[in-house]
Amino acid sequence: MTPQQTPQQIAERCAALMWADDQAARGLGLELLEVGPGMARARMTVRPDMVNGHGICHGGFIFTLADCAFSYACNGYNQRAVASGADITFLAPAQLGDTLVSVGQVRQQGGRNGLYDIEVSNQEGRMIALFRGRSSRIKGTFFDNLNSANGTPP
Amino acid sequence: MTPQQTPQQIAERCAALMWADDQAARGLGLELLEVGPGMARARMTVRPDMVNGHGICHGGFIFTLADCAFSYACNGYNQRAVASGADITFLAPAQLGDTLVSVGQVRQQGGRNGLYDIEVSNQEGRMIALFRGRSSRIKGTFFDNLNSANGTPP
Amino acid sequence: MTPQQTPQQIAERCAALMWADDQAARGLGLELLEVGPGMARARMTVRPDMVNGHGICHGGFIFTLADCAFSYACNGYNQRAVASGADITFLAPAQLGDTLVSVGQVRQQGGRNGLYDIEVSNQEGRMIALFRGRSSRIKGTFFDNLNSANGTPP
Amino acid sequence: MTPQQTPQQIAERCAALMWADDQAARGLGLELLEVGPGMARARMTVRPDMVNGHGICHGGFIFTLADCAFSYACNGYNQRAVASGADITFLAPAQLGDTLVSVGQVRQQGGRNGLYDIEVSNQEGRMIALFRGRSSRIKGTFFDNLNSANGTPP
Repeated sequence: MTPQQTPQQIAERCAALMWADDQAARGLGLELLEVGPGMARARMTVRPDMVNGHGICHGGFIFTLADCAFSYACNGYNQRAVASGADITFLAPAQLGDTLVSVGQVRQQGGRNGLYDIEVSNQEGRMIALFRGRSSRIKGTFFDNLNSANGTPP
Repeated sequence: MTPQQTPQQIAERCAALMWADDQAARGLGLELLEVGPGMARARMTVRPDMVNGHGICHGGFIFTLADCAFSYACNGYNQRAVASGADITFLAPAQLGDTLVSVGQVRQQGGRNGLYDIEVSNQEGRMIALFRGRSSRIKGTFFDNLNSANGTPP
Repeated sequence: MTPQQTPQQIAERCAALMWADDQAARGLGLELLEVGPGMARARMTVRPDMVNGHGICHGGFIFTLADCAFSYACNGYNQRAVASGADITFLAPAQLGDTLVSVGQVRQQGGRNGLYDIEVSNQEGRMIALFRGRSSRIKGTFFDNLNSANGTPP
Repeated sequence: MTPQQTPQQIAERCAALMWADDQAARGLGLELLEVGPGMARARMTVRPDMVNGHGICHGGFIFTLADCAFSYACNGYNQRAVASGADITFLAPAQLGDTLVSVGQVRQQGGRNGLYDIEVSNQEGRMIALFRGRSSRIKGTFFDNLNSANGTPP
């Protein structure tokens, strides 16, 4: 890391590079609202193609939204990390047209494994789901720490 | 239940009615291969819009596939049920173009709560993820047990 | 509830009545430090009979300590509740002689189901484990709300 | 591993060495009934000091029994492993005097991380709890593979 890069700048640069390849997040209409060291905030609107046989948002899309916030939160240290697992509790249904926001926050990040808590709430502030993600670092960084001139924050 | 309906027929009829409204599953290109009392098997191919910033299938879509098998498995008793939560462990990455199959099986179904185990594997039989879903029954059935003439198995 | 009973008084009274029968907690040398509506704090010292084959505190006792805080937190509304499940992540080992404190806090309590987060840390403030408990209310109260004269807070 | 040691023999020898230091398991009156590569079976009787404020076996002791089976199952390859986390679902209460048996079985064991499923049932064969444990290998073996003459199966 060059001296002029703060943890916040590193997190933003990782997110920008990750976002460029994140077809899944873009395909879901996800907006990445904010990233920081060990945190991320993302928004998604429940579309007709996210509705299940009960007429409410499929839990898989709520999980995916949470998983996105988790992913950007745990990848913001310029060390690539993947989800090794997660537990989700669904607290209230999300309806077609709802705007959901997920906020992810690190609880513990060791040299290899991390634990992150993610909350998903709707436009009225109602809690929709609580997600606890387990991350595992893999080999690789997002950018070369010695040549950071091209960093483009999201 | 009319006498002529077996548990297998009930499961198939629930699935057919649920599938008719399941835009999420159809939007993902999911195929429902088989249902039975407390079980379901579904297939999905990893598309370009399911790939994340690491170049592999976004965990959210693996979760969603598992969640679909879970949902059809726990809704096959003509009692509407929703997921109250789930835990997933990712064992190996899925790649673009992989054909994933998820098989869900009841472990315990009480009057209200159920526990289901779902496995996701790829076209080579490699285990991709293990998912354990917690279901909770809500009010409502899929069809009137006294008038079952219109059941159309999937 | 008689008018003079606050949620705090109700929580303390439930805890006192529960504690009277809680041979498991007393057998572990657990101290109940504090209870309130949806929260509880408990302490336990790692004894020689809690040490496993690796020479560190058996995870089962860390879980049990967390489960105790969870139990007092979710039973403080004068509605009996039991654990339907829990997820625990072990972050650091606990050693023989360590004094562990667990703090439980409600995240969501509906009419029937609840979700509680419990943290376990050691005497140096290091996080040892994070526990997320799922509670389910059963029939029964701890005391008759109309005759609350005999409540004895712990 | 010397040629004459089978995976079964290795598992038994690891268990014997682990058991010698496992004060926690012995303090609970646990009996280790069987071990094998990636599996273990253990038994415990619910004692008065395991009963909680609801008059039933404290969930912590059910977890601990499951955790013991998990621990012997994941430590049977002569590579020390610890629990990194676990999820438990309680399906039915256990009563004072019940004899509980837990059976643990590997689902996946990689070079570092493992996933194990453990079932706890009572003397009537009723399922009491389902536990899914996540293991992580640490440095160290139980015995020197080149000098295995002293292996003493449990």
